[in-house]
Amino acid sequence: MKILVLPGDGIGPEIVAQAKKVLAALQSDGLGLELEEAPLGGAAYDQYGAPYPEFTQKLAREADAILLGAVGGPQYDKLDRPLRPERGLLAIRKDLNLFANLRPAILYPELANASTLKPEVVSGLDILIVRELTGDIYFGQPRGVRINEAGEREGFNTMLYSESEIRRIGHVAFQAARKRNRKLCSVDKANVLETTEFWKEIMIDVARDYPDVELSHMYVDNAAMQLVRNPKQFDVMVTGNIFGDILSDEASMLTGSIGMLPSASLDADNKGLYEPSHGSAPDIAGKDIANPLATILSLAMLLRYSFSAEEAAQRVERAVKAVLAKGLRTADIYEAGTEKVSCSAMGDAVVAAL
Amino acid sequence: MKILVLPGDGIGPEIVAQAKKVLAALQSDGLGLELEEAPLGGAAYDQYGAPYPEFTQKLAREADAILLGAVGGPQYDKLDRPLRPERGLLAIRKDLNLFANLRPAILYPELANASTLKPEVVSGLDILIVRELTGDIYFGQPRGVRINEAGEREGFNTMLYSESEIRRIGHVAFQAARKRNRKLCSVDKANVLETTEFWKEIMIDVARDYPDVELSHMYVDNAAMQLVRNPKQFDVMVTGNIFGDILSDEASMLTGSIGMLPSASLDADNKGLYEPSHGSAPDIAGKDIANPLATILSLAMLLRYSFSAEEAAQRVERAVKAVLAKGLRTADIYEAGTEKVSCSAMGDAVVAAL
Ligand SMILES: CC(C)[C@H](C(=O)O)[C@@H](O)C(=O)O
Ligand SMILES: CC(C)[C@H](C(=O)O)[C@@H](O)C(=O)O
Repeated sequence: MKILVLPGDGIGPEIVAQAKKVLAALQSDGLGLELEEAPLGGAAYDQYGAPYPEFTQKLAREADAILLGAVGGPQYDKLDRPLRPERGLLAIRKDLNLFANLRPAILYPELANASTLKPEVVSGLDILIVRELTGDIYFGQPRGVRINEAGEREGFNTMLYSESEIRRIGHVAFQAARKRNRKLCSVDKANVLETTEFWKEIMIDVARDYPDVELSHMYVDNAAMQLVRNPKQFDVMVTGNIFGDILSDEASMLTGSIGMLPSASLDADNKGLYEPSHGSAPDIAGKDIANPLATILSLAMLLRYSFSAEEAAQRVERAVKAVLAKGLRTADIYEAGTEKVSCSAMGDAVVAAL
Repeated sequence: MKILVLPGDGIGPEIVAQAKKVLAALQSDGLGLELEEAPLGGAAYDQYGAPYPEFTQKLAREADAILLGAVGGPQYDKLDRPLRPERGLLAIRKDLNLFANLRPAILYPELANASTLKPEVVSGLDILIVRELTGDIYFGQPRGVRINEAGEREGFNTMLYSESEIRRIGHVAFQAARKRNRKLCSVDKANVLETTEFWKEIMIDVARDYPDVELSHMYVDNAAMQLVRNPKQFDVMVTGNIFGDILSDEASMLTGSIGMLPSASLDADNKGLYEPSHGSAPDIAGKDIANPLATILSLAMLLRYSFSAEEAAQRVERAVKAVLAKGLRTADIYEAGTEKVSCSAMGDAVVAAL
C-alpha cells in the first residue's frame, strides 16, 4: 500500500512533517505502508515549472492515498492562472476523480472557548459537510472573458451538473448519514437556478434507496443563516462544489479552531487525498508555530477511508484528544491556563500519546 | 411623488400595514406623497394569474419608490417555475433595473443578547453589504436542463457580468463607503472563476476614482469565515448577486434579529424598492405577532434614498430606537424583562414615538 506525501507550500512542510512522525510510529508498530514524496502547488512550480507536474501526477496515480499539507503563497499571485498553486490542487482533484469532499466541523470540548459563538449554540457541534468536488462552476465550460454583442467585455462561467454526478455524490452523502444520525440536508438554490433544481430532483430520487435517512432541503442563503442561528440542527449536509466551498468554510469557523479540522477527498474506490481544512498560512511559515493537528487528523481519516485501518485511525484520534486533555496548545488555540507548544513539540506529544 | 405599496404574501400585509400607519403620521405632518397599492408574488398570482402582472408592472413603473412586504408561501411551491412568487420579485428587480441592493447588518445595542455570537464579537456591529441584483447567474443565459453528449440529462446555468454592470455597482459601493468608514471589501472567487477575476480587475479600476477609500479583496469562502470570526473588520462589502445572496443573509443573522433589518434595491436614479431582509414567514401569518420594524426601517430608507427626505428618515429611525429603549418587543426579539407586544401594537408605538 502506497501513500504519497505532498508537503506543498507555506506551513505545509512543517505540519506534514508532524504527521509523518505519527505515521512512522504506527509503522514501527507493524503498519506496512510505503511512502513517497512529491511537490504540489508553488513548490512544484519552483521545481518543475508547473503546479501539478508529470512527476507528481505519476506518483499520485500510483498511490493508494495522498496526504497533502497546503498550497499557495503571495509569491505566486502574479503568475499566469494555469501556473498558480490552486490550479495544482484543482488539477489533482479532477485528474484522480476525487469527487467526494468530506469536511467535518467538530467542536472539541477542550476548545469550546475558541468559538466566537455562544457555548450553548455550539457545544457538542458535530456536522459533516459532503461537498461535490469535481463538477459545478469550478470546471464547467464554456468560461472566460469575451466581447459581447454590445461590444463590451464580459466575464462568464458555466454551472453544470449531470445526473450521474449528482447521483454518485448523493449516495456518498446518504451512506455517510446512515453511519451518523440519519439526517441529510441537501442545499440548493432551486428557486433560482435550474442546475440546483435538477440537483434537488435527483437527490429526492436517490433518497428512495435510503428510507432510513431523513432528507430535507434548504436554500443556500438560508443554510448560511441557519449555520449561524442554530448549527446543531444539522447532521450531514450535501451540496455542490461552489456552495460547499462557502458553507464548509463557514461551518468550520463556527468551531473557532480551524487548525483542528481535517478533510478527505475521495474517488469511487476510496482512494483519497487528505488535507487540513485550513490554508498554507504563509505569514507564519517556517516559524514552527503552526498547528499540525488538522494534518494529523487527516492522516487518521486516510487510515480509515483508504486503508480501512479503523483501529489505527482511532489510535491517532485518541492521541490527539489526549494531548488536548493534557493542556497542550499551539498558538492558534492557546488560551490562559494551557501550555503553549511549537508545531514540532505538538507532533512529538501526539507520538508520545499514541 | 408616488409610492407604490406591495403588501405581498404571508406576514407581508400585516407588517406593511404598520409602515403605512407611520407614513400616514408623517403625511399629516406635511410630507406630500401619493400612495397606490398592488399585489406581487402569490397574492398577484391569486388575483391575476401571474406573480408580476401588468397591473402591478404599470404602477411600479410609474412610482418613484416601492415599499414591499414579502413574497412566497408553501401553497405556491407546486406552481410552474414562471408562476412562483419569487419570480415576481426577480421580475420586478429586472424590469425596473434595480441593480444595487443595499443590506445593512446592524446590531441594536438593546438587542445584543439576540445574537448567537459572543457580545464582544458583535457589539457595535455595523456592516453594509452592497449586492449586485440584476446580473450574475440569476439572469445569465443559457440555462436549463438538457441532454448532454453522453445522452445524460444535465442542469446548467451561466454566471455572467459585463464590464458596465460591474462598474456601476462598484461606483455605488465606493460612494456608500465614502459616507461611512471608507473601507470597501470586494468579494470574489478570482482564484477559480474568470467572471469574478474580471470583477476584481474592474473594481481595481473603479477604485482610481476613489483614492480616499481603501479597497481590499477577499475570496467568498474566506468572507463566509471572516463574518463569523471577526465581523467588525468590515465596513462596506460589495459582491455579485449569488455571493451577495449568501453573505448578506449570513451577515444579517449575525445580529440575531433579522426582524430589524431593512433593505433597499436601487436603480441608477435612486428609484427604489424597499423591503425587510426577512421573508414572508407563512407559519406566523395573520397572527399579528410578526415584527414590523424591518419594514418601518425600510420606509426610512425609502425616504432617505428615493426622496432625499433625510429628516423624515431620521425621525422614523429615532422613533424605532425609542420604542426599543422603552422595552417593547415583538415575539421574535422578546426576552425576559421586556414587554411583549403584537405587530399592530408595535406599529402604534412607533407612531406614538414619532
Ligand atoms: C484553493 C481553492 C481553489 C480551493 C477551492 O475553492 O476549492 C479551496 O478554497 C478549498 O476549499 O479547498
Ligand atoms: C426569494 C429569492 C429569489 C431572493 C433571492 O435569491 O434574491 C431572496 O433570497 C433575496 O435575497 O431577496
